[in-house]
Amino acid sequence: MRIFIHDDFLLRNETGQRLYHEIAKELPLIDFHNHINVSQLARGYSFENLAQLGVIPDQYKHRAMRVGGIPEAGITGKASDKEKFLNWATIYPKTLGSPLFHWNALELKRIFDIDELLNPGNAEKIWSQVNEQLAGNAFSAVGLLKKWNIEWLSTSDDLLDDLEVHLQATTRSGIKITPSLRGDSILAFESDHFDRWLEKLTVATDASIKNLNDYLKALRSKLTVFQEAGCQFADHALDAGFTFRMVSEEKASSLFQKRLAGGRLMPSELTELKSWMLVHLAGEYNERQWALQLHVGAQRHTSSRLRRLAGGAGGYAAIGQAADIHSLVQLLDNLEQQNSLPKIVLYTLNPTDNEAFASLTGSFAEDGVAGKIQFGPAWWYNDHYEGIRNHLQTLSNYGFLCHFIGMTTDSRSLLSFSRHEYFRRILCDLLGEWVESGLLPPDDELLAETVRAVCYGNIKNWITTKNKIHINETI
Amino acid sequence: MRIFIHDDFLLRNETGQRLYHEIAKELPLIDFHNHINVSQLARGYSFENLAQLGVIPDQYKHRAMRVGGIPEAGITGKASDKEKFLNWATIYPKTLGSPLFHWNALELKRIFDIDELLNPGNAEKIWSQVNEQLAGNAFSAVGLLKKWNIEWLSTSDDLLDDLEVHLQATTRSGIKITPSLRGDSILAFESDHFDRWLEKLTVATDASIKNLNDYLKALRSKLTVFQEAGCQFADHALDAGFTFRMVSEEKASSLFQKRLAGGRLMPSELTELKSWMLVHLAGEYNERQWALQLHVGAQRHTSSRLRRLAGGAGGYAAIGQAADIHSLVQLLDNLEQQNSLPKIVLYTLNPTDNEAFASLTGSFAEDGVAGKIQFGPAWWYNDHYEGIRNHLQTLSNYGFLCHFIGMTTDSRSLLSFSRHEYFRRILCDLLGEWVESGLLPPDDELLAETVRAVCYGNIKNWITTKNKIHINETI
Amino acid sequence: MRIFIHDDFLLRNETGQRLYHEIAKELPLIDFHNHINVSQLARGYSFENLAQLGVIPDQYKHRAMRVGGIPEAGITGKASDKEKFLNWATIYPKTLGSPLFHWNALELKRIFDIDELLNPGNAEKIWSQVNEQLAGNAFSAVGLLKKWNIEWLSTSDDLLDDLEVHLQATTRSGIKITPSLRGDSILAFESDHFDRWLEKLTVATDASIKNLNDYLKALRSKLTVFQEAGCQFADHALDAGFTFRMVSEEKASSLFQKRLAGGRLMPSELTELKSWMLVHLAGEYNERQWALQLHVGAQRHTSSRLRRLAGGAGGYAAIGQAADIHSLVQLLDNLEQQNSLPKIVLYTLNPTDNEAFASLTGSFAEDGVAGKIQFGPAWWYNDHYEGIRNHLQTLSNYGFLCHFIGMTTDSRSLLSFSRHEYFRRILCDLLGEWVESGLLPPDDELLAETVRAVCYGNIKNWITTKNKIHINETI
Repeated sequence: MRIFIHDDFLLRNETGQRLYHEIAKELPLIDFHNHINVSQLARGYSFENLAQLGVIPDQYKHRAMRVGGIPEAGITGKASDKEKFLNWATIYPKTLGSPLFHWNALELKRIFDIDELLNPGNAEKIWSQVNEQLAGNAFSAVGLLKKWNIEWLSTSDDLLDDLEVHLQATTRSGIKITPSLRGDSILAFESDHFDRWLEKLTVATDASIKNLNDYLKALRSKLTVFQEAGCQFADHALDAGFTFRMVSEEKASSLFQKRLAGGRLMPSELTELKSWMLVHLAGEYNERQWALQLHVGAQRHTSSRLRRLAGGAGGYAAIGQAADIHSLVQLLDNLEQQNSLPKIVLYTLNPTDNEAFASLTGSFAEDGVAGKIQFGPAWWYNDHYEGIRNHLQTLSNYGFLCHFIGMTTDSRSLLSFSRHEYFRRILCDLLGEWVESGLLPPDDELLAETVRAVCYGNIKNWITTKNKIHINETI
Repeated sequence: MRIFIHDDFLLRNETGQRLYHEIAKELPLIDFHNHINVSQLARGYSFENLAQLGVIPDQYKHRAMRVGGIPEAGITGKASDKEKFLNWATIYPKTLGSPLFHWNALELKRIFDIDELLNPGNAEKIWSQVNEQLAGNAFSAVGLLKKWNIEWLSTSDDLLDDLEVHLQATTRSGIKITPSLRGDSILAFESDHFDRWLEKLTVATDASIKNLNDYLKALRSKLTVFQEAGCQFADHALDAGFTFRMVSEEKASSLFQKRLAGGRLMPSELTELKSWMLVHLAGEYNERQWALQLHVGAQRHTSSRLRRLAGGAGGYAAIGQAADIHSLVQLLDNLEQQNSLPKIVLYTLNPTDNEAFASLTGSFAEDGVAGKIQFGPAWWYNDHYEGIRNHLQTLSNYGFLCHFIGMTTDSRSLLSFSRHEYFRRILCDLLGEWVESGLLPPDDELLAETVRAVCYGNIKNWITTKNKIHINETI
Repeated sequence: MRIFIHDDFLLRNETGQRLYHEIAKELPLIDFHNHINVSQLARGYSFENLAQLGVIPDQYKHRAMRVGGIPEAGITGKASDKEKFLNWATIYPKTLGSPLFHWNALELKRIFDIDELLNPGNAEKIWSQVNEQLAGNAFSAVGLLKKWNIEWLSTSDDLLDDLEVHLQATTRSGIKITPSLRGDSILAFESDHFDRWLEKLTVATDASIKNLNDYLKALRSKLTVFQEAGCQFADHALDAGFTFRMVSEEKASSLFQKRLAGGRLMPSELTELKSWMLVHLAGEYNERQWALQLHVGAQRHTSSRLRRLAGGAGGYAAIGQAADIHSLVQLLDNLEQQNSLPKIVLYTLNPTDNEAFASLTGSFAEDGVAGKIQFGPAWWYNDHYEGIRNHLQTLSNYGFLCHFIGMTTDSRSLLSFSRHEYFRRILCDLLGEWVESGLLPPDDELLAETVRAVCYGNIKNWITTKNKIHINETI
């Protein structure tokens, strides 16, 4: 049998092969949104075995194992690392047709040079072979990062997270590793955890938070810490059901006061307070020239049983309702009207939103900023062969591919950076297909420029292009 | 002109051809959800003509004729059988590009060995030729079933339907023919027919239904009858607009009481009573180890005129709104929390839900049950070449193809079983396409196993795998 | 490099090439919905330069320029015509993969015989070359219409627009140019402009509008003017958020009275008054045997900044929410129940509605009218290679391609008629692909008939087929 992950994997036309091998392949990786464990990088951590590296932190694999009927104990429970890996090996052949089948093959090939596809028959052999390699320095957390040719990692961090590790990891690796702000805790007024989180904020900022103003001030001091640590992105989850309704600062203040006093906010009040806060925060981000990522449409609460057993982010989330486009538009328009619309990356978990999101990239614009509103790369469950193709096609049809800032992994596993290669192959193959079927002219220079821009150049330029202030604008 | 339905119809690559001819073709059919007239089978019915067999019971054809401008009298009205067939022959060439064009060609080819495509010019000839064949015993209702190589038919039956016919049909045919419960009447509290139906239930169960408890008891006695007749599936339609809101048994009781007393329930009350009942019934199904099929998203009320002329299920239904994913998730979670989540098959009529439904297959799981939550086959208007492909691709991308329980027809016509062949060809072609374009490895064994499982093995194993009870679960 | 717009552009199979060159290519154009400036045609206007003809009136190009970061002054502001064209030339190569890349190439090729693809390097040359040609009579507004082989233009006109120009344009060009009614102003009760518009109506019809009845009477007199000018279509925009709730005439009257008296209608009151008016108007259209076009799902309000700078229809609109299918169905059913359902064309801006809309074509029917409910061609942002293919495929899968009334441009630019060629090539290519992959039989006659019908014949027959009255109908 031909090697599955051969040189031209996914490259089914000559133009695509040329674009990938001559242009895309060697470009460094900029991964602007992920959940990599920075403290492992800072400490110079090495992995004991393949389960620790590639199974235990990979919720996609947990999900496949669950659907395959593996007992939860053997996935996230008390089973040994090796048992978990062997369970995964049992399930791997059953992922035929799913992105996991490709991803796992790519991971084993690129990092460990393993051509065999995992199955119960070769699982023991692969387990030993990989674990042996993992013992070497070249396969430490930092070593792996270097293997992937990463230029810049921007991780996802809570406002209260320790950002020292980013500097340490940067120093240790020689790779730019910066935090980005995951702002969800700031708005989690409906959660019982919010009180504890607020207390920690109080302590961390040496503040006394008695009203909204105090809260904003404490937040601001923490934003400064992020800024100093090199942060260039903020990120909010607008889960399924997100709606926007702008209210006055006065109203927001009184709602915050009610919450502080231990009151439970009604759903409509939560919408109002969160809307106001989101606008306020986006203004803060914009002042600092950060871009704002909006992750729309997850249905995170599904099985209460799995939440109890596997934790709050256990891979059992589902795709939620289509987005409330009207609310999204109002959010962006509100920001623009206040001269505080940051550069935006819109992600949706429900691909039924793809066209609407891609069309939104043309609804707000700024002089001198190409692609100010981005339709972010195929996210989470959409991050598969067809999902990536669909995203690129939809963006091309309803927006403009040439301005796209490209791929990011959103992953927790150091093996997942193989998905940049996956993305690049799909991009080159698609462009090649278009050329060879006459949909695009065979203009090598234009094609090469596009590949370079989407895989690498655009994100670099885009994040450093500054937003301006428009006052008394005439044309 | 080459014969249209040739051996390799829809099989456009060698791998697919091999998979179909060597594996898929000869596997018996299990059709786990359909509306076949069992009493015809029980009585050993023979059809007088092709209209009776293939036009009068086929609402897809009615729809095509209506859109083509044929007067309703010539479709479902007083026209003769032959006139209706000739009308259909006029319209058939106009279905070019629609699934009907394929289905009708397959029907005529497989059962009557007719290669010509129907048109007004050959309609008389085909009419005579087929009617002649129909006179023979081999083309009786039971004869047709045998021609299709059917192993098990699970029909769709109201709680009050006579289930004796299933036994008779089984005896006469030697084919396993079991009822499954269509539960909609049980929840039809908004309908004027409900009162009459309830009265019939009262008589049939020799009960006196004065409150919810009495109602549940009467239902239970009928469920036992289904159980004894070999039922393994229940089925509920969650039409467009379905929402879920769980209430206490006390609240449900009082709402039922209000309805019994002749009160009209408000929309929100209907939601509450139906939600409670659905959870209760699903628990009953789960106790009996039945699987629960949920048919989501039909817009059944469209033209009042056609409803009046052609009856309540006259083929003029439309695709309704996208599903309320949050409600679906709450329904499943409620069941799971009560240890009474049956095996589930989710169907959607609006393919905009495909990704969300496919992702839901990974949100609830059970130790030892592979594919507990199924994304059911492309349903109703989606049951065409691209719809089936899309379903298989979406399931592969967001779920796991290998656990899929495969095709069912949901049909009223004995000619429709050709759609299993249709499905199998599309499946094999798709797998072959993936292999030949390098998306899958050419692993013959794995491919054959997948085809066997999806076409036949999975449904057989899945339906007999037992759900367990999880109490005080730790991992 | 091979010429990009060569003879077989988009025609990737022999059957498709044959269908296009032998059948589709020479058929005249009927463009039943567009926003062409009729007064230019009436006056025999000639264009000074390419910007005036093809950049300034083309909001798709404005959008591309904005996303590319061009300052608004250089798009719709005070920059000179030439500057605007040069800005567009800078952006054109960045539209690679977008429909604009194809459209602009087709425009330059068909009208000006330019094979080069626009770029900053050849922009000056193309500017001079085209402007020289534009000076000649053959390139006047009327001259361009003739180049496109147009048989009938049906434009979009406000109730108060001057319709004399249509007669003048017809006389000058020898081409049938008729108005169609854009009915939105009639229902714009929420707008401050409504009062001024109503006053103009009062003056124009010499009426005194004191109540709903007066209003309807004034409207009727204007409808007669449209009728006399050859109008055969009305058109309403049902923007994102459209819902329908029928009320009594009495209720509608009182709501109208409230509005007349200067009251502000609540959202639910607007829904009610608009619903009643829409039903009433559709009845008026049906009496006149006009077809009704419904453009569903635009999110027109996005950036307030761009609205202020570029006007109310400035190309920054977005795709809105999925349609409320239930409301649409109720609207159509209400009309049918009153024997006043006109022939309908349903468009959606959100392609997530495609399947539901295509299925609606089978939910209402009329004896003798083939394809009474049309799923209109891929609209606005969907009018690209894949959007057109998707529309044709969805219509084929869920409805019936053979009855489709085909393409219309909905455009403001006289260069946009190239999109009929674009559509026809895609249609022929798709049919050819189906034939060559065995999905359709190679029945040349049936294929040719289908192409002729969809590109030209159907719209001609459909618009002249009369609706009937159904009273005391039995079948």
